[in-house]
Amino acid sequence: MKNSMWGGRFSSGPDAIMEEINASIGFDRKLYRQDIRASKAHARMLARQGIIGADDAEKIVAGLDAIEGEIDAGTFTFSRALEDIHLNIESRLKTLIGEAAGRLHTARSRNDQVAVDFRLWVRDALDATDAALRDLQTALTDKAAAHAGLVMPGFTHLQSAQPVTFGHHLLAYVEMIGRDRGRFRDARVRMNESPLGAAALAGTSFPIDRTATAEALGFDRPTANSLDSVSDRDFAIEALAAAALTAIHLSRFAEEIVIWTSAQFRFIRLSDRFTTGSSIMPQKRNPDAAELVRAKTGRIIGAQNALMIVMKGLPLAYQKDMQEDKEQVFDAFESLELVIAAMTGMVRDMEPDAAVMKAAAGSGYATATDLADWLVRTLGLPFREAHHVTGRIVGIAAERSVELDALPLETLQAVHAGITADVYSVLTVESSVASRTSYGGTAPDNVRAAAMRWRARLAAETAELPA
Amino acid sequence: MKNSMWGGRFSSGPDAIMEEINASIGFDRKLYRQDIRASKAHARMLARQGIIGADDAEKIVAGLDAIEGEIDAGTFTFSRALEDIHLNIESRLKTLIGEAAGRLHTARSRNDQVAVDFRLWVRDALDATDAALRDLQTALTDKAAAHAGLVMPGFTHLQSAQPVTFGHHLLAYVEMIGRDRGRFRDARVRMNESPLGAAALAGTSFPIDRTATAEALGFDRPTANSLDSVSDRDFAIEALAAAALTAIHLSRFAEEIVIWTSAQFRFIRLSDRFTTGSSIMPQKRNPDAAELVRAKTGRIIGAQNALMIVMKGLPLAYQKDMQEDKEQVFDAFESLELVIAAMTGMVRDMEPDAAVMKAAAGSGYATATDLADWLVRTLGLPFREAHHVTGRIVGIAAERSVELDALPLETLQAVHAGITADVYSVLTVESSVASRTSYGGTAPDNVRAAAMRWRARLAAETAELPA
Amino acid sequence: MKNSMWGGRFSSGPDAIMEEINASIGFDRKLYRQDIRASKAHARMLARQGIIGADDAEKIVAGLDAIEGEIDAGTFTFSRALEDIHLNIESRLKTLIGEAAGRLHTARSRNDQVAVDFRLWVRDALDATDAALRDLQTALTDKAAAHAGLVMPGFTHLQSAQPVTFGHHLLAYVEMIGRDRGRFRDARVRMNESPLGAAALAGTSFPIDRTATAEALGFDRPTANSLDSVSDRDFAIEALAAAALTAIHLSRFAEEIVIWTSAQFRFIRLSDRFTTGSSIMPQKRNPDAAELVRAKTGRIIGAQNALMIVMKGLPLAYQKDMQEDKEQVFDAFESLELVIAAMTGMVRDMEPDAAVMKAAAGSGYATATDLADWLVRTLGLPFREAHHVTGRIVGIAAERSVELDALPLETLQAVHAGITADVYSVLTVESSVASRTSYGGTAPDNVRAAAMRWRARLAAETAELPA
Amino acid sequence: MKNSMWGGRFSSGPDAIMEEINASIGFDRKLYRQDIRASKAHARMLARQGIIGADDAEKIVAGLDAIEGEIDAGTFTFSRALEDIHLNIESRLKTLIGEAAGRLHTARSRNDQVAVDFRLWVRDALDATDAALRDLQTALTDKAAAHAGLVMPGFTHLQSAQPVTFGHHLLAYVEMIGRDRGRFRDARVRMNESPLGAAALAGTSFPIDRTATAEALGFDRPTANSLDSVSDRDFAIEALAAAALTAIHLSRFAEEIVIWTSAQFRFIRLSDRFTTGSSIMPQKRNPDAAELVRAKTGRIIGAQNALMIVMKGLPLAYQKDMQEDKEQVFDAFESLELVIAAMTGMVRDMEPDAAVMKAAAGSGYATATDLADWLVRTLGLPFREAHHVTGRIVGIAAERSVELDALPLETLQAVHAGITADVYSVLTVESSVASRTSYGGTAPDNVRAAAMRWRARLAAETAELPA
Repeated sequence: MKNSMWGGRFSSGPDAIMEEINASIGFDRKLYRQDIRASKAHARMLARQGIIGADDAEKIVAGLDAIEGEIDAGTFTFSRALEDIHLNIESRLKTLIGEAAGRLHTARSRNDQVAVDFRLWVRDALDATDAALRDLQTALTDKAAAHAGLVMPGFTHLQSAQPVTFGHHLLAYVEMIGRDRGRFRDARVRMNESPLGAAALAGTSFPIDRTATAEALGFDRPTANSLDSVSDRDFAIEALAAAALTAIHLSRFAEEIVIWTSAQFRFIRLSDRFTTGSSIMPQKRNPDAAELVRAKTGRIIGAQNALMIVMKGLPLAYQKDMQEDKEQVFDAFESLELVIAAMTGMVRDMEPDAAVMKAAAGSGYATATDLADWLVRTLGLPFREAHHVTGRIVGIAAERSVELDALPLETLQAVHAGITADVYSVLTVESSVASRTSYGGTAPDNVRAAAMRWRARLAAETAELPA
Repeated sequence: MKNSMWGGRFSSGPDAIMEEINASIGFDRKLYRQDIRASKAHARMLARQGIIGADDAEKIVAGLDAIEGEIDAGTFTFSRALEDIHLNIESRLKTLIGEAAGRLHTARSRNDQVAVDFRLWVRDALDATDAALRDLQTALTDKAAAHAGLVMPGFTHLQSAQPVTFGHHLLAYVEMIGRDRGRFRDARVRMNESPLGAAALAGTSFPIDRTATAEALGFDRPTANSLDSVSDRDFAIEALAAAALTAIHLSRFAEEIVIWTSAQFRFIRLSDRFTTGSSIMPQKRNPDAAELVRAKTGRIIGAQNALMIVMKGLPLAYQKDMQEDKEQVFDAFESLELVIAAMTGMVRDMEPDAAVMKAAAGSGYATATDLADWLVRTLGLPFREAHHVTGRIVGIAAERSVELDALPLETLQAVHAGITADVYSVLTVESSVASRTSYGGTAPDNVRAAAMRWRARLAAETAELPA
Repeated sequence: MKNSMWGGRFSSGPDAIMEEINASIGFDRKLYRQDIRASKAHARMLARQGIIGADDAEKIVAGLDAIEGEIDAGTFTFSRALEDIHLNIESRLKTLIGEAAGRLHTARSRNDQVAVDFRLWVRDALDATDAALRDLQTALTDKAAAHAGLVMPGFTHLQSAQPVTFGHHLLAYVEMIGRDRGRFRDARVRMNESPLGAAALAGTSFPIDRTATAEALGFDRPTANSLDSVSDRDFAIEALAAAALTAIHLSRFAEEIVIWTSAQFRFIRLSDRFTTGSSIMPQKRNPDAAELVRAKTGRIIGAQNALMIVMKGLPLAYQKDMQEDKEQVFDAFESLELVIAAMTGMVRDMEPDAAVMKAAAGSGYATATDLADWLVRTLGLPFREAHHVTGRIVGIAAERSVELDALPLETLQAVHAGITADVYSVLTVESSVASRTSYGGTAPDNVRAAAMRWRARLAAETAELPA
Repeated sequence: MKNSMWGGRFSSGPDAIMEEINASIGFDRKLYRQDIRASKAHARMLARQGIIGADDAEKIVAGLDAIEGEIDAGTFTFSRALEDIHLNIESRLKTLIGEAAGRLHTARSRNDQVAVDFRLWVRDALDATDAALRDLQTALTDKAAAHAGLVMPGFTHLQSAQPVTFGHHLLAYVEMIGRDRGRFRDARVRMNESPLGAAALAGTSFPIDRTATAEALGFDRPTANSLDSVSDRDFAIEALAAAALTAIHLSRFAEEIVIWTSAQFRFIRLSDRFTTGSSIMPQKRNPDAAELVRAKTGRIIGAQNALMIVMKGLPLAYQKDMQEDKEQVFDAFESLELVIAAMTGMVRDMEPDAAVMKAAAGSGYATATDLADWLVRTLGLPFREAHHVTGRIVGIAAERSVELDALPLETLQAVHAGITADVYSVLTVESSVASRTSYGGTAPDNVRAAAMRWRARLAAETAELPA
C-alpha cells in the first residue's frame, strides 16, 4: 500500500537527502537581523583597517540595509538552494551591488559568522526574557502587596502545616524569579564576547581589528581563542539551562493554580480570559493556560537535554552536528516567552477567596507549633518536651473534634499546670502569622516590607532602562 | 530600547496568549487524513446503528471526501480561530453540507477524536519507519555479502584487537536494526486498539458499535477502559523510545563513518553525494550526512525525554498538557526518516579500501589470541598459561619490531619447546578470521551464510507486502 | 583552606585514579550468581565438546558452587585490586582448585562474560518486575471490583467533567500496567539470546557449542553476530525505557493520591502505614509513600537518559564507556521494585469516602452531557443543536444556583418544547454512570465485568507459574 | 519459582516499604560535618539571643564536637530506625549531654536544617571542583606553553582544514574551563544565603538572629522568604547544570584523546599510567581513562535531568519528593571529581608526536586559504574571486598529486598572471600558523602570550588562596 504521507520525501535519492541535511534556511532565517548587523560591522572594520575600500564598504552597508528592508517587508525571496541565511543574503547582495559583495567575506568564514549571529540572537533572547520576568515579578509583587495579610494554609506534602499569608506565598516566586534573572544576567555577561575574526578556526592573517567589531556589536571584548570561538555552544546550553529552571519554577506555580482552581480547593478564581469553558458546563473553568505553563517545562528541559547530547564528545572545531543548535534554542525561548506571558497574565487576573483560604488555614491544628513555641518561650520547657505536651493537648482536641482555641483552660492545665490564659493569644491563625517576625518570616508586616523592597528595586530597574 | 523581534507577540494581552495556547492548527493539520478517515468510519457506524440517518451519513462522508481533496490540493483555508484540525474540518463540513454536519459529533468527543487521529498517525509512522529500516537492512546485507571476506581490524577502545571482516561488521548493524524493527512491531501491536467511542472519558449512552469503527480503521479491537483511552499517550512515548534506540544505533555507525573517512583512517570512501567539499580544498570530503545522523540522536532522545516529563504526574483523564504530545512525535519521526534515508544512501555509496583495512588489521599483533588459542588447542596448555607464553613471544616480536609470523621457529621454541611450524598457519589475518567459525563468528563463510539468511528473510518480507 | 572532605581521594596520583576507573567490584558484585551460573554452563559445555577434561570441568563446577556458598554466607573477601566480580571469582577458584581454574576461560573473554552475566541479571529483574506488577494489578482489580459502582467525578483539567465510578478509575491503571507488562515481556523475548561464545568480539576457533550454553542458561538461542554481541546494551536501555513508562503511570496515580488525601479533597484515606504524621499534628497524614513514588520517576527517567547518552556515538565493539551500564540499571530496578511495592500497599490500604466522592460528582452540572445526549436520542436533535439547548438550560440552573434536576419541567420546556418528564431519569449521577454502557464505558455492570475478566486472567497467570 | 535475589525485600509488608522510603541515613550521613557545623552555629546564636541558656549551648557544642570526633573515627553507630543524619546526631547528643539536647531544635525545623546542611555540602563541592579545575587549567597551560609552536591539523568534520598549533588547541580547553569555573563561581554567589531560621516554612516567633548564623556559616546573608527557603533546590540544579557542561567539555577532549591515540592517528602517546594493556598485546594501549571521562558525562547529565524532573510541578513548600535531591548531587560531583582528576593526569602525561602531527597538518592542501588570502592581500582580488583562482590551482596540484608548494611558478601564473614567487612564503604550515596573528589566532607568538596570560592569572589566584 502506498502511503502518500511517507516515504516520498527522499525517494528521489541522495540529492534530496543532502539538501535536507544542508539546508538550514528553513529555521536560520530568524537570524537575518543579526547576520546583517554583524556583516555591516565587519565591512566597516575592513574599510577602516584598509583591507577593503571605503566605497566598497559603503556599498555593502547600503546593500545590506536594503536587504533588511526587503526581509522586514516580506518581499525577500528565500532560496533553499542557497542553503542558509548567510548565502541567501550574500547572493542577494551581489545582485544589488555587484562585485563589491565579493569583498565582504574577506577575513571571515561561515564558522565565525554563524557563531556571531547566533550569539547576537541568544543575547537578544536573554534580554527579552529578563524584561518579561521583570514584568512577572512586578505582577507578583503588586498582588503580594495587596494580599500581604491574607491568611492561607502553608502546605507541606499538600497538607496544611502552618498558616502563612497569600502575599508571602507570592513573594516566594518573586525570589525564585529573582534568581532566574540572575542566571540569565550571568549568562549574558559570560557570553558577551565576539567570535567574529576567528575565521574558519585559526584566526586570519589580515590586519583585522576584532575589538572594533566587538564594540560595534555591543560585545565586551573579542573571544580569546579562535578554535574555541567556532567550537563553542556553551552560551546556548547555559541559556537553555537557565530557561529550564525558570520553567520549573513556573510549573510549580502552575500546578498550584490547577489545584487551587479545582472545585475542591477554590482558593483562587481565574477569569475566562485564562480558562476555557464548555458551552454546556458553565461552571467548568479549565485552567488551560496553567496546564500549558506546566507542560512546556518538558519541552524546554528536552531542548537542553538534546543540545547537550549533540555536543557531548564532539572533537574540535566545527562539526556539522552543531547545526542542530538553533532550532532547540529558538523553540525553547519562544515557548518560555509564551509561558511567562501567560503566567504574568494569570497573576494579574487571579482573585483569591479570602474566606475559603482562611478557613482552610484554621483547620487541622495548624497552630500546634505556636502552642509548642509558647510553652518553650513562656514556660521555659525544652523544645522536645514542649512538643510532647502539645501532642497530648492536640490529641484531646482531636478526640473532641474541636480546634485548639475551643479547649477550656483547665483542660490545658491538666496536661501542663503552668499554662495560662495568655496561651489563647497564639492559637488563632492571625496571631500565628503575626508572630512569625523572624527575617523572611510570614508576618504580614514582614511581607509588606518585602513587597516594598521588591517594588523599589523593580522601579529602580525600570528607571535605568534606556528610553 | 524597543526590541522589534521580541515582546510584541503578547503585548495585546490575554487574547493573544490564549489563542497561542489553544491553537494547535499550526501543527495538528498534519492529522487531516487521519481525522477524516476516523470521522467517516464514525459516521458510517452511527448510521448502521440507527443513531443518525443513512442519508446524513452519506452527506457527511461525501463532504469529508471533498474536504480531503481540498486539503490535498492546497485550496483549503485553515483558520487559527477554529483552533484545531477537528474544528476546521467540522466547520467546513457545515458549510458544505449544512445541518447534517451537526450530527457527526454524536457519541464522540474531541478527547477520543484526537486520541484516535494521533494513534492513526503514529501507526503510519511506525509502518513507514519499518519499511525504511528494511531498506537499510537490505543495503547493509548487500554490502556485507559483497565484502564477507574483506579483512579489517576489529576494535575495542578504538584499538585494533582482533581481525574481523567488513561484512561481519556491517551485519552487526543488521542485527541491531532487526531488534529496532522488533520494537516498532511490538509497539504497533500494543497500540493497535481504537479509543474511538470512549467519548469525553466515560463512554456513551448511545448504542455505538466500537468494534465496527475499530475494524474500519484497521485496529485489532477497541480499547477496554474509556478513562484510560483518553488519558493514554503510551503509544507515543513507546514509539519515541524505539526511535531513540534506533537513532543511537545509527549514531554509532555514523561515528565510525566520520572516523573511517578521516585522512588518518581512510578505511572507506564516500562519494560527493554524501559529503560536502570546499571549492579550494578538493581533498576535503566533509561527511556532513554522517555527522547529521549522529546529531539527530540528541533531538530524538530529547523528544522522548520531553514527552515523558509532560506525562509524569498528570492526573486522569485529559489535561491540556497533553497537547504537547504531537510536535515532539512529528519532529522525531521526520528526523528519523531523514537519518535512515541518509544512512541507507551512505551504505550503498561507501567503498571500502581493502588494502588499507587489511594492513591495519595485520599490525599490532592482532593475531596474538590466535597464537594463544593454538597453544591451548594443540599443546593442551591451560588458557591462562597459554596467555603467559604468548605474552612472552609477542614481547620478543615487539623488541625486534616485527610481526609474529616473522619470528623464526627456534625463537618460538625457545619460549615453549612444544611449538611446531604448524603455528604459522594461525598467524595471518586471513587464517585468523577463517578460524572464527563458532556460531556468530567472523569466519567469511559464516558471514556469507548470515548475509544469505538475512537476504532470504528480507526478500520473504517484501514478497508479503501488499501490491 | 584544607577541605578534608574533598581533594584527597586522588592526591596520590594516577594509581588511585586508574583504580577508581577500572574497579567495578563495588557494584558488579551483584552479578555473582549470574557469573557463577554462566561459568558453570561454559565449563560443562567445554568438557562435553572435549575442549577441556571432564575432571577439570567437575572441579571447576564444584569450586564455583563453593564460592557461591561463600558469597551467600558473606564470608567471601572481595578484592578491589582484582577489579571486578569475574576476576575475584576466578582468583578464588584458582586458590580452591588449582590449575584447572586456568582452563575455565578457554574460548571466552571478559567481553562476552560480562555481556552474559548482565543479561541474566536484567532478565531476572524483568521477571521480578513482572511478578510485582501482577500483584499490583491484582490489588487494583480487587479494589475495583469492590467499588465498581462507587460514583466519583471524572476529571479533565482537574475539573469535574462527567461522573465515573471509582472502580472504573482503578481499572484504567490495570490497563496501563497491562501494557507495561507487555513491554517487559517483549523486552524479555527480544533479549533472551546468549552472547556467550562471542569471545572478545570475533568468535572463537574452538569447537564450542553455543546452543548448549544458551539452553543451559535458559536462553532461546545464541546471538547471531559476535561483534554485536559484545557491543550491544539494547536490552538494558529497552528495560529502562519500559521501567520509565511504568514509573510514569505510577506517578500519575501517586499524584492523584496526594491530591485526594488533601484536606480539601478527602476522596480517600490512607492509614498510617503509608503516611507519616507529626507528633503535634495528628490530623496531618503526609502521603510520603505516594510522594516518593512520584519522585522516583525522575530517577528512572534519568537513568535511561544517562545510558542512552553513554551509548550514543560509540564505535564498535567494546568501549570502556560501557562499564557505566550497570549502576544505572541496578539503581533503576531497585527503585522500581520499591515504588511498585509501595503502590501495591497503598492500593490495598486506601479507603474511599463514598459520600464525599458522590457529592463531588454531582456538583457542577456534571450530567449536562447526559441531558444533551437525551435531546439527541429522544428528540432527534442534531448533536450541535442539542448542545446549544443544554447550554441554555444549564445557564438558567446556574443563575438560580440549583442543580439540573431541581429545575421544573416547564422551565425546561420553555427552552425546548419537546422535553418530557422522562428527561429527569438521566440527570442523576447514578443514572449517568449506569447509562455509559458502551464497551469500555463506566457503567457499573461494565466495570464489574471488566474486573472479572482481569481477575480471571490474573488467576490463570498465577496458575501457570511454576511451583 | 522463588527468585532469591528479588521480591524478598518488601515481603514483610508496609513497614519495610516505609522504612525504605523514609530512611535517608544510607546517603545523608555524608552531611554530618555540615549538620554539626550548622547546629553549633544555631546553638550559639540561641544562647546569644537569650533563647536558651549559655551553659546549655556550651554542652550542646561540646557534645556535637564529640560526635563529630566519633564519626570521623568511625566509632559512631548509625541507626536506620533514626531515619536520617539529623535524628542520628540529635539522639546521640541526648545520650551524651542529657536534657540540654532537647533545646537545640528550638526555633528551627528539619526543613530548614536539611536545607542549610545540603547547601553547605554543595558549597564545599563547588569550591573543591573549582580548585580541581584550576589544577586542570594549570596542566593545560603548562603543556600549551611547551608546545606553543607545534604544528598540527586544525580539524573541521574530523578533516584537516587549516594548520594550528597543539598549544592553541590546548588553550581552547583552558578557555572552556574558564567559563566552567565562572559558572561554578556564579552559582556559589547566588546560593550563598542561609535558609536557617526559615523553620518549617513560615519563620518563627522566637527572636532569632538569622544574620548571625548566616555569618557564622560563611553565608553572605540570610534568605529573604521562608517558604522559598525550604522549597528551593535551585542551588543543586544549577550546580548540576554547571557540572554537566564541564563534563561535556571534558568529553570532547576525551574523544580527541581516544581518536588521537588510535594506531591510525598516533598524534599523542599516553603512558601506561592512563591506559590499560593486554598481557598478550603489548602494543594495545586502551585509553580507559579517556573513555571513562567521556562516559561519565551521561551520568552527570542524567542526574541533572532527574532532579529537574523531580522538582517540576511540585507545589510549595516541602514535599517528600525533594528527598531525591542528595544522591544525584553526591554521585554527580564525585563523578566529576574523578573525571577532572583523570583528565588532569592525562594532560600532564600525554606526549605529542610532533612529526606525525606536522605531516598530517601539511597534507590535503591545508594552506589553500593562505593562498587565497595572499591573492586578496597582495593582488587586491575580491575574496570570492581569489577563492575561485585558488580552487583552480589546487585542482592542478591534486591532478599531479603534489602539494601546493611543489607547483612551479609558471603553473601558478598560468592561472593568474599576477602571482609572484612571494606566494611560496605563505604555503608552508609554519608560515600559515605564523601568519594567523589576529587576536585569538593560532600564531605561535599569540599562543605563547595567551599561555603566559593564563599562567599569570592562575598564579595570582593561587597566591590569593588562604594558607
